[in-house]
Amino acid sequence: MSAPPRQLHLNVNILHSGFIPSAWRLPDADPLAFIDAAHYVKAAQIAEAAKFDAVFLADNASIIEQIDFRPITALEPTVLLAAVAAATTRIGVIGTASTSYNEPYNIARRFATLDHVSGGRAGWNIVTTADAGSARNFGLDATPDHAGRYARADEFTEVVKALWNSWDDDAVVGDKQSGRFIDEAKVKPIAHRGKYFRVQGPLNLPRTPQGQPVLVQAGGSGDGRELAARHAEAVFSAAHTQEESLAYSRAINERAAALGRGPHAVKILPGLATIIGATEAEALRRRDELIDMIPWSYSLKRLAGTLGIPVERLHLDQPLPSDLALPAGGNGNHTFFHATLSLVQGRRHTVRDLIRALCGGGGHRVLVGTPEQIADEIEAWFKAGAADGFNLMPDAFPSGLQDFTDGVVPILQRRGLFRREYEGRTLREHFGLARPGADNGDRVRAA
Amino acid sequence: MSAPPRQLHLNVNILHSGFIPSAWRLPDADPLAFIDAAHYVKAAQIAEAAKFDAVFLADNASIIEQIDFRPITALEPTVLLAAVAAATTRIGVIGTASTSYNEPYNIARRFATLDHVSGGRAGWNIVTTADAGSARNFGLDATPDHAGRYARADEFTEVVKALWNSWDDDAVVGDKQSGRFIDEAKVKPIAHRGKYFRVQGPLNLPRTPQGQPVLVQAGGSGDGRELAARHAEAVFSAAHTQEESLAYSRAINERAAALGRGPHAVKILPGLATIIGATEAEALRRRDELIDMIPWSYSLKRLAGTLGIPVERLHLDQPLPSDLALPAGGNGNHTFFHATLSLVQGRRHTVRDLIRALCGGGGHRVLVGTPEQIADEIEAWFKAGAADGFNLMPDAFPSGLQDFTDGVVPILQRRGLFRREYEGRTLREHFGLARPGADNGDRVRAA
Repeated sequence: MSAPPRQLHLNVNILHSGFIPSAWRLPDADPLAFIDAAHYVKAAQIAEAAKFDAVFLADNASIIEQIDFRPITALEPTVLLAAVAAATTRIGVIGTASTSYNEPYNIARRFATLDHVSGGRAGWNIVTTADAGSARNFGLDATPDHAGRYARADEFTEVVKALWNSWDDDAVVGDKQSGRFIDEAKVKPIAHRGKYFRVQGPLNLPRTPQGQPVLVQAGGSGDGRELAARHAEAVFSAAHTQEESLAYSRAINERAAALGRGPHAVKILPGLATIIGATEAEALRRRDELIDMIPWSYSLKRLAGTLGIPVERLHLDQPLPSDLALPAGGNGNHTFFHATLSLVQGRRHTVRDLIRALCGGGGHRVLVGTPEQIADEIEAWFKAGAADGFNLMPDAFPSGLQDFTDGVVPILQRRGLFRREYEGRTLREHFGLARPGADNGDRVRAA
Repeated sequence: MSAPPRQLHLNVNILHSGFIPSAWRLPDADPLAFIDAAHYVKAAQIAEAAKFDAVFLADNASIIEQIDFRPITALEPTVLLAAVAAATTRIGVIGTASTSYNEPYNIARRFATLDHVSGGRAGWNIVTTADAGSARNFGLDATPDHAGRYARADEFTEVVKALWNSWDDDAVVGDKQSGRFIDEAKVKPIAHRGKYFRVQGPLNLPRTPQGQPVLVQAGGSGDGRELAARHAEAVFSAAHTQEESLAYSRAINERAAALGRGPHAVKILPGLATIIGATEAEALRRRDELIDMIPWSYSLKRLAGTLGIPVERLHLDQPLPSDLALPAGGNGNHTFFHATLSLVQGRRHTVRDLIRALCGGGGHRVLVGTPEQIADEIEAWFKAGAADGFNLMPDAFPSGLQDFTDGVVPILQRRGLFRREYEGRTLREHFGLARPGADNGDRVRAA
């Protein structure tokens, strides 16, 4: 018997209105969707009906968007995802939370609670927070340096894992006859003493249905890649070419293997924005309509932010400046910086071309076409090993997601690439990840 | 026309298994209810069917219970309450979060999110955290002193309110035609510079349906009462006699009035545990059965903790030691210390009598009797002005709550004391509280 064929994984990044910043201006869009739980619930139900692995929510700790033109990432993910979990039964719920402005004990509890409340469907997307506005919301004048943020994130994640492991699976006895409720010998302190944190433990919450929520990360920089290789079970990456993505997947997984995590321990799920039409011409028309509703001043400012340069250095009808480089040790967004530059490499792009190619978006790859064309691209990347799946960002919600689930998913299913039914009940089972035991060596770091 | 009669308010404190520590041992109890969202959802649905004002969830940041004998407060309230809100439509959802081991920006966001997700039903129960175990989970060797904890709580709450007020009600424009999304002039920094916090703001989340989530507190100490008078809209108090509760209500409300908050600005909702039977004898039998399942060693340790003395000083068949006093400036639980002492005042109680009177519980008043008897007590306190309502703690879930809603609520309704239908949609409307405007003077504290 041959091994079952490798299966594609699909998450949807539920955005406030859509990947395209002007999506809220479409005739059927509700401008208040970004603060309406029903918007997120509806998207999750569409994705669940199509057997997606998970929904994904980003997060920020300040207003980083240009709010005069577009909705913001507003609702806190763990709270919102509990409402999403209550309205679904199978789909995973992955939320972002920053290691920069939280305490590990609180984060361990919130994601463990989400795992209990969702019946084993929770994932934590580990991020560090780089913007100066966030720093000023948490008592700092400026953002801590890049290396320091990642060192803190690494220790933070170790503490969270140790807290999740501080209860054995069978610690709750609940024997009504004897009156014995919990076996105290199976609930142990973690006694963590590190550079950034001292946490005694144990967690005040039993081990979760998945053993541990799934760990997700998005590491573009060197430090980010190291964090991903050490802890991530899935990475939400950004890449515009198969070659880039394949090299990234190999690098992360080789490093993870060197750290003793086994072969291909980290699923690579590149971000993928989609604009779908019944014909290619229709898809292109939809794209142009959406782009025409984005002010160029908005896109220029956003691109300048991604590239870490003053907006005055960008001119719509000229190529990008040739001397672009992320400041050394700086807090730029490595992922989007490199992904954006890879788009123009070796070609004569004007800034206007580049903004159109990015659809005014934040640096992720955009596919415009028919369901067949999009399925072909997905299959090509998947078969080449450049992706284990994708983190989808439809142009607009819910229409763009519905276009994908109605149009693209059936093609992927017919080609044997994507499940027709859920086989498991937990996010770990959807992703094909093992359930971590309590004794995985993470418990005690240093006495 | 006369003013509409004053209406009673009822919250239910959804406990892991019930007020009585042995509730999990009842034949129909599920020992795993404490980590099962369905347990909390079911209780909320029972309470909503009976038109309760709100459900209430306590919280801790360490294991403070004797886990060998009983379930613990485990699931994090804001996440759990989002799931509860998703399964209900009208009832308020009040969650506890500590000012000691959180950041105000994060708490402002989580409760604002809960208010959005629940459609205006969120409340925040403001607590400080006194136990040494919690301190050790957040990098400290010992708990900060009482006055310092309350000074931090006061500033923390001011920052949270200012963040909630940092968006005007009409800041979101969402005009598809012009492309204008948010009016930036209506979203303002708070520029808070205080002793404990520096927070620039604004919040990255629009103003919530209630303007602000409802502020709840439980202030027993002098500092706690001051915090309640300054910020609380409802207080979850502890009192065993009408006189105590009336004096407490007058003191808090006089202080609130002196602070410019208007007459009777703070609703007083004493904790009330109930054990209900069709006859008094049946209720007493249920009580005795439950008490007989609590190990005396457990209750002695718990009482010693409440009183702040070594357990060796307590002897079941002797009176309490006569020299009890909370250590000056200490971190004892003022509310339960005084409530417990008031129970024995002027009477010859043995420690065993006292533990039976407390039902092995934590210091709150316990009523044992028929629905009629319990309704009589509720009416008496309410009419005397000793309570605006109660925070109920049924002996066991869901049976004890169902006994209350089936038995006591119809009597209260017949007597015109409690609503038969919800009139409002938000928790503020249930409680009869005004919606705070954005310009209530809390925005900027100091430049």
